[in-house]
Amino acid sequence: MIEKANKLEVCFSPIQFPLFETDNKIVVVTDILRATTVITTMFMNGVKQVLPVRFIEQAKEMKQKGMIVVAERDGKKLDFADFGNSPYYFTRDVVEGKSLVYSTTNGTHALTLGVNSKQVLVGCFLNLSSVAEYLKELKTDVLILCAGWKDKFSLEDSLYAGALSQKLLKGNGFFTKCDSANASIDLWEKAEKDLDSYLEKVAQKHRLQKLGLHDVIPYCFEQDKTRIIPYMEFSKDGNSALIKQR
Amino acid sequence: MIEKANKLEVCFSPIQFPLFETDNKIVVVTDILRATTVITTMFMNGVKQVLPVRFIEQAKEMKQKGMIVVAERDGKKLDFADFGNSPYYFTRDVVEGKSLVYSTTNGTHALTLGVNSKQVLVGCFLNLSSVAEYLKELKTDVLILCAGWKDKFSLEDSLYAGALSQKLLKGNGFFTKCDSANASIDLWEKAEKDLDSYLEKVAQKHRLQKLGLHDVIPYCFEQDKTRIIPYMEFSKDGNSALIKQR
Repeated sequence: MIEKANKLEVCFSPIQFPLFETDNKIVVVTDILRATTVITTMFMNGVKQVLPVRFIEQAKEMKQKGMIVVAERDGKKLDFADFGNSPYYFTRDVVEGKSLVYSTTNGTHALTLGVNSKQVLVGCFLNLSSVAEYLKELKTDVLILCAGWKDKFSLEDSLYAGALSQKLLKGNGFFTKCDSANASIDLWEKAEKDLDSYLEKVAQKHRLQKLGLHDVIPYCFEQDKTRIIPYMEFSKDGNSALIKQR
Repeated sequence: MIEKANKLEVCFSPIQFPLFETDNKIVVVTDILRATTVITTMFMNGVKQVLPVRFIEQAKEMKQKGMIVVAERDGKKLDFADFGNSPYYFTRDVVEGKSLVYSTTNGTHALTLGVNSKQVLVGCFLNLSSVAEYLKELKTDVLILCAGWKDKFSLEDSLYAGALSQKLLKGNGFFTKCDSANASIDLWEKAEKDLDSYLEKVAQKHRLQKLGLHDVIPYCFEQDKTRIIPYMEFSKDGNSALIKQR
């Protein structure tokens, strides 16, 4: 018996997300530098749950209510927040058993877009193989959503999309007719040969460098540090969400 | 004296166009399969001018007024139109000295987006070097706009963006910090090594194949067949446009 292969697509920008049918798909959201890497790190270090919050005002309100708030815009920590957006801040002693509020430039918005899809997963290089294996087990169509930079294309997210697509297309479980998926694989195949020098092209690397925050970059491209897959849990009305761990 | 290099950016989809500042830029619009290739071919064969029209109803009206109408949606010629969208239709005996009305799925909309930019050029592989040389002379910032497929990313337009970017970045005239520009160059560098087999990945190739219209594809990737650069001439109110030849 031949099993029907599942469809794989890649969306390069949140602004294009509404162009894709996602009701019966799993959406893997990625924001390599840095949101999905940071969220995964939080769970690796035992965070209980993360509340992604799109708007700064919401994050402020939650701070006033006494919650721990991580908030960043254009790479920089917001004044009122407890933490900026480096994965290095969220060690076990800081996050274990805690609930964190989280708001960033691109990632937290992208994470909420798949509210009507089957499931939204948090993907990054740290859990690359784990996500790939889980998706292969589930036998569902998949859309990889790149958080990008302010609705523009971003290389680092596309590289992840390529790395994950490459894994999914090995074997017969998935097929793609999606130009973005094919492009992302080509970009990843080129980049992975010499990742360090390839990353010189990445605009977000230079943005972080200007802010003195580029020490996180090698870590953000480390593969398979964990089996943990954070996922989105939406409220019934779809107006709020939590990130939990499966 | 060091001349200031000009900025080069690539926009992968019309839906992202408003994210770019374009007031002081030249916009090069490309829709390789097939609008910008077809328009360039029309001018190579002596067309007087082309009226790009976004909506089918407008094209119908113009047909009723007795004009020659080229109109296609999803690759197929519309019933009321005189011609579909193959470059092979527009031989010299058909188009010389004539005005044509032109409406396609992606290209005609993309062509009008740069109404507030300095200039909008029609780019394709047929006039690749000519466009590159003209842009180098002008010393203006450039945005290459890919028409894409229904606001999604398309490989063939990105390949052209890469080919043109590669030419522009040779020498000191242009620089880029744009992830899409860098990605497009990598894609082109991979594709040009064996273009025929690379094109197997292109979704639009398969769409055209299904319609029996894929005989045009090799032609659409032929480089430097002409020095002609069609450009957009917008009315003062910006509500209508003509394509002319420089």
